[in-house]
Amino acid sequence: MISPEELTANVLASHEEVPDPRLRVIIRSLITHLHAFATEVVLTQDEWAAGIAFLTAVGHMTDDRRNEFILLSDTLGLSMLVDLVDHYSDAGETESTVLGPFWVADAPWRENGAVIARPEDGDPLHLTGRVLTTGGEPIAEAIVDVWQASAKGLYDVQDPEQTPGNLRGRFRTGADGGFDCWTVRPVPYPVPTDGPVGKMVAALGRHPWRAAHIHFRVSADGYQALTTHLFDAESEYLDSDVVFGVKEMLIRSIRRVEGVVPEELASKRFEYFEMSGDFILA
Amino acid sequence: MISPEELTANVLASHEEVPDPRLRVIIRSLITHLHAFATEVVLTQDEWAAGIAFLTAVGHMTDDRRNEFILLSDTLGLSMLVDLVDHYSDAGETESTVLGPFWVADAPWRENGAVIARPEDGDPLHLTGRVLTTGGEPIAEAIVDVWQASAKGLYDVQDPEQTPGNLRGRFRTGADGGFDCWTVRPVPYPVPTDGPVGKMVAALGRHPWRAAHIHFRVSADGYQALTTHLFDAESEYLDSDVVFGVKEMLIRSIRRVEGVVPEELASKRFEYFEMSGDFILA
Repeated sequence: MISPEELTANVLASHEEVPDPRLRVIIRSLITHLHAFATEVVLTQDEWAAGIAFLTAVGHMTDDRRNEFILLSDTLGLSMLVDLVDHYSDAGETESTVLGPFWVADAPWRENGAVIARPEDGDPLHLTGRVLTTGGEPIAEAIVDVWQASAKGLYDVQDPEQTPGNLRGRFRTGADGGFDCWTVRPVPYPVPTDGPVGKMVAALGRHPWRAAHIHFRVSADGYQALTTHLFDAESEYLDSDVVFGVKEMLIRSIRRVEGVVPEELASKRFEYFEMSGDFILA
Repeated sequence: MISPEELTANVLASHEEVPDPRLRVIIRSLITHLHAFATEVVLTQDEWAAGIAFLTAVGHMTDDRRNEFILLSDTLGLSMLVDLVDHYSDAGETESTVLGPFWVADAPWRENGAVIARPEDGDPLHLTGRVLTTGGEPIAEAIVDVWQASAKGLYDVQDPEQTPGNLRGRFRTGADGGFDCWTVRPVPYPVPTDGPVGKMVAALGRHPWRAAHIHFRVSADGYQALTTHLFDAESEYLDSDVVFGVKEMLIRSIRRVEGVVPEELASKRFEYFEMSGDFILA
């Protein structure tokens, strides 16, 4: 009987002539590691059949509006890992994190200081920040694309009770690199648990929650675009975010402030939260 | 910035408390190897997005009648590897190979010597064999389940022109452990090339052909069941079978014989091929 190592070597030998050199590197590494996995755990045929059935269910749950494979990649930490190896740098720029499934390409353009939330979306939050170079110089005319979920844990694209564009917007920085808007304090929410990946997360003994965060895509001519989050330092799940998206430098303290809140956002007009985040672009 | 290795360690740390101990071993090994793959090749986000799109397409091609994920596993050598690690033994039994997607549970029972093919299915072949213990003793009343493709490369379940049960049957061995039937000489055929896995195989610069083979499942009370093939020693693709199913000890010479062929199988009734295979059960 040939050994598992010999079989793997035979399969690799069949992939020495892959025409595209990058594809050759990728497929040979993938075969090496998938085979090492099956050999190491002595995977049984029944277990692999269960794996095939799981992947099939993930495929069948995936459509134009929901990608269960991205959720699988996210919950295994693979999306964050690819984000990390694809952007690895020590130039001092702000760290990135996953895009997630709720970004939209055509978020409304907003003026700085605009209100992007409704009173029922949560506690008022004044969000301020600057876009800077790695040398600390302000970047004017940078685009800051912001999006987040409501107090119910839903994005506008998931929630028929929200107007499209609610809790999202694109801002341009001023001469000092600054932007600001009025929104709500983010809350933790669970990733979808009604599909095969939700069942997997439960079987793994893990919870399905993401730590409270606001999403950002920051771009400016001549700089590398940045996709990231800011996290609420007081949020639950910072140590156990289900998609492993939290990075130390992206956690921000939220301050309680006494002052005037725009009327369309708040019933209590004289108290709000404030969160600041500078973004450094390479 | 944390390193890829630190991120992988964090993800593994989140899987130390998986309740089912076997699932814990499997998921931790899978995460380790998937992360090592992405880190080693410095997978880009665009490449991983292409990977997600590929897996989605594989899922969408999969239904009750066709499992593109099994084909993916087969073409990456993973099915054969799992077969190998799940059955690794040096007890001297006949080696196994993949079941494939065309086995059916309720193949017709046949008498030894039965004809299971039509004249248009190929060149007449008298298939004989015995089922033996590892000590060489015959096993009577063993079940030998046989199935194969026609000269067109199609199994009955794929081909509306074949009657269900054509080119398949279940036989019982006699007191000498023997069985025999009249069928046709197998020919190479390609795996399905109209789906994403077919496109992948083409992009890898590989052909989609399987070496000519007949499938067997052999079982007897008190013995481990065996799923295997016998391959025609003169077939093309023995060295490059697309699913890596060929094993040296499963290759059989086919002899040309002068003699009488059952009338319902042949127009040329006085020449046929003969293939013999003994199966040793542990």
